[in-house]
Amino acid sequence: MQFSSSLLEQAVNEFAKLPGIGKKTALRLVLHLLKAENSAVQGFGETMIRMRNEIKFCQRCHNVADADICSICANSMRKHELICVVESLREVIAIESTQQYSGVYHVLGGIISPLDGIGPDQLNIETLVSRVRKEHTQELIFALNPNIQGDTTIYYIQKKLQDANVRITTIARGIAFGGELEYADEMTLARSITNRMPVESYRTGG
Amino acid sequence: MQFSSSLLEQAVNEFAKLPGIGKKTALRLVLHLLKAENSAVQGFGETMIRMRNEIKFCQRCHNVADADICSICANSMRKHELICVVESLREVIAIESTQQYSGVYHVLGGIISPLDGIGPDQLNIETLVSRVRKEHTQELIFALNPNIQGDTTIYYIQKKLQDANVRITTIARGIAFGGELEYADEMTLARSITNRMPVESYRTGG
Repeated sequence: MQFSSSLLEQAVNEFAKLPGIGKKTALRLVLHLLKAENSAVQGFGETMIRMRNEIKFCQRCHNVADADICSICANSMRKHELICVVESLREVIAIESTQQYSGVYHVLGGIISPLDGIGPDQLNIETLVSRVRKEHTQELIFALNPNIQGDTTIYYIQKKLQDANVRITTIARGIAFGGELEYADEMTLARSITNRMPVESYRTGG
Repeated sequence: MQFSSSLLEQAVNEFAKLPGIGKKTALRLVLHLLKAENSAVQGFGETMIRMRNEIKFCQRCHNVADADICSICANSMRKHELICVVESLREVIAIESTQQYSGVYHVLGGIISPLDGIGPDQLNIETLVSRVRKEHTQELIFALNPNIQGDTTIYYIQKKLQDANVRITTIARGIAFGGELEYADEMTLARSITNRMPVESYRTGG
């Protein structure tokens, strides 16, 4: 692309660095900002800079926070003896959006993946183990993606906590509500038959 | 979506204001910025603010510019007696990217569209007319989208310049190179037969 303004070119290049944004989309976004009010663009730029500089990570669960402790950990109405273990804050947002979970979280910051050079030491596993022992946690619910790395991570943490009196569970796997049996993959379909559940619990959603 | 940080929420909302960016994409982009270096995010935000505050519009052709006159108008190697009339700077970028055009431009800032309340007075038509008279322009090439509004705009400007000694042309319409005849719309196919051209000009690229 040929630009007659280096300011325009720089702005397009900055947008094009973002994942999934190509040059044409970047140009469309920049032309939108060019038509917007000065104050709106000022707000856009400053919000990004402030977000990056001022955002904190909760000292207890490693979720993003505006203070030292995140709003979920600081909420005394939540069940603090129930911890949902997730890979990143993406899953925290997804689970919170269901408005069905009343426990707290622990963000690992990744999963054990030797091929990518990610070992247990790079993740927030030590803090989880000491947290479970100190807070007398009753249950850890693992909400990790169903793959080898996720299973390895669960196994590693389970070993570390085998002497602690904590129940370890994982979120239910099966055919999605609204999912067609015919299009389900074989692994999911096979597991959903093995792990079949009583009709009563299905009906009540329990 | 439920966020545990208002800084994060604000950043997602700012991105989601951009055209074609939904909440999920906005979250993906913000999480990318959250992982990036502080200085990179600082650069991103400041580039947008600086672009909006400092960008200028060329006093001659209304294209975006870093100075009072854009780099195309300031280039003495270009043919200043040949003006390509376009709707917006998007078309300037598209035509410049072909590296086949050596004339200059005039950006109208829109096209005449009574249904959208856009009349000739809101466009850069007066400056085009006075420019043609003052600069003794030899040819105006209209590169507008082929619809009623585009045709109206060409007709209006042509009327304004009927006493001036200027050749008025429009970019060639026809079947695109690589386009299949069978999928061409009837209007384009019919026009491309009416406006057929000698094989020699086709072979040499005309």
